[in-house]
Amino acid sequence: MASTQHNSYSIGHALPQVQHHEWRTAENSAAHLIPHLETSASQNPHLKLLDVGAGSGTITASLAKYMPEGQVTATDISDDILQRAQFHAAKEGVKNISYQRASVYELPFAESSFDVTHAHQVLTHLDAPVDAIREMLRVTKPGGIVSLREADLRMWCFWPEVPALQRFHELNLEQHISNGASGTAGRELLSWVLKAGAKRENVEMSFGTWCFGSDRDRKPWSDSMVERLQSGPVWGKALENGTVKREEVEEMVDAWKTWAATEDAVLGIVNGEAIIRKA
Amino acid sequence: MASTQHNSYSIGHALPQVQHHEWRTAENSAAHLIPHLETSASQNPHLKLLDVGAGSGTITASLAKYMPEGQVTATDISDDILQRAQFHAAKEGVKNISYQRASVYELPFAESSFDVTHAHQVLTHLDAPVDAIREMLRVTKPGGIVSLREADLRMWCFWPEVPALQRFHELNLEQHISNGASGTAGRELLSWVLKAGAKRENVEMSFGTWCFGSDRDRKPWSDSMVERLQSGPVWGKALENGTVKREEVEEMVDAWKTWAATEDAVLGIVNGEAIIRKA
Repeated sequence: MASTQHNSYSIGHALPQVQHHEWRTAENSAAHLIPHLETSASQNPHLKLLDVGAGSGTITASLAKYMPEGQVTATDISDDILQRAQFHAAKEGVKNISYQRASVYELPFAESSFDVTHAHQVLTHLDAPVDAIREMLRVTKPGGIVSLREADLRMWCFWPEVPALQRFHELNLEQHISNGASGTAGRELLSWVLKAGAKRENVEMSFGTWCFGSDRDRKPWSDSMVERLQSGPVWGKALENGTVKREEVEEMVDAWKTWAATEDAVLGIVNGEAIIRKA
Repeated sequence: MASTQHNSYSIGHALPQVQHHEWRTAENSAAHLIPHLETSASQNPHLKLLDVGAGSGTITASLAKYMPEGQVTATDISDDILQRAQFHAAKEGVKNISYQRASVYELPFAESSFDVTHAHQVLTHLDAPVDAIREMLRVTKPGGIVSLREADLRMWCFWPEVPALQRFHELNLEQHISNGASGTAGRELLSWVLKAGAKRENVEMSFGTWCFGSDRDRKPWSDSMVERLQSGPVWGKALENGTVKREEVEEMVDAWKTWAATEDAVLGIVNGEAIIRKA
């Protein structure tokens, strides 16, 4: 597979690492796509949607509900995570999704196979995001849509501004970038899309946010950050190679726990969003 | 007026400075309020809305269209800018707005006068934002809404990352803060609201963005930044006191013009948003 020449997905798919990913739904993570999906599904109930890098599949299952008579295909580079996605969809009673291991650089589908091709937080992890967009455009039908949403990792804002959380953000960003990923995917998204061959007039560009500012939203985020710090591969490696000390990790763990329990605490994260109409 | 003890509105109301403010509408700058306003107006067509710090009034006029049988009151500390707002509303054919000069710290209205009290990019300029929110809550009816939206000035992202634009952002932030305003209003908004006496369960917190990523949106923004640089009071003062050099200003002017004409150029700005239901 071509993907072996590229960088790896540094966060990994160990189950404790993906917990906060499962907070994600179409409504909180693909709101820019929903009106387009509703219009497309009303025009053609037998819509075909591809979700690339679907991970544990909560957004996939959530999107599938907008097209109950359509067919969704979910791909990821990890079989394990796709099993988890399958389990999630079954639990939700969603039956119109099939799963297939695939690299985003070499999608195992013919040209013009899908009405909608969707990726969320995929390009930011890649060292060749433009190639990935080109491949997504290839498998999309003319007149169809490619929908992208990628975090701008530099655009986080915390309140209160606890130094240990700022340190976490700094190190997180460094780790991400040193693995060949991007710290500025949100702001660069439009430039990538144009480099992949889309014409400006066929692209709708926006920024969307995540707001973790209530108990319900802060808790799963904080739990997942704590688990990443305590048992995730990235922080384990950082401890090994000395870029972070054990005491620092403990401080960051405490800071996330305190933050989650603070009534006026907030975390804002910004995502670039693009809807590309394939010419 | 109490406001004379507070900091002034540093940007000023000279007409060339407010141009990009007039790009603002309810749809691009108060989207978080619209569904609440629609619900309120359907329950009570004779809604009373107060727009605090309405400036040149484009959001005011835009909100007024959602409540054609209701009554809107627009306040600002500047009579000149309210005249401009009046002119704008007349041009738009909006007739249900009255105008009144007032300080946000001492609103000339009885307790519980309004169903909806709205402020957009007001608190970020104040040295006592909590007092202002308390005053806005005072004039709002129990069961009514206070709607706030404030930029987090530290949360700007540019593409391309031109050094002159980054320098502009840095200096802009410094000028803003040195005038007693806040560089982190977006992330602090929830904490201000709770300090003003609202209970957490009565507050909906979100982040909303502005995306300047098309010719249509980049041009008015860039034009206004250029005019501020060339004739605005803040940059004039910076030139006088030597915090910026004439050549630097010229570089920044050129950078904004080039940015506006660049096909893949983007500016993202993040705003904290709160809907407070008055208990």
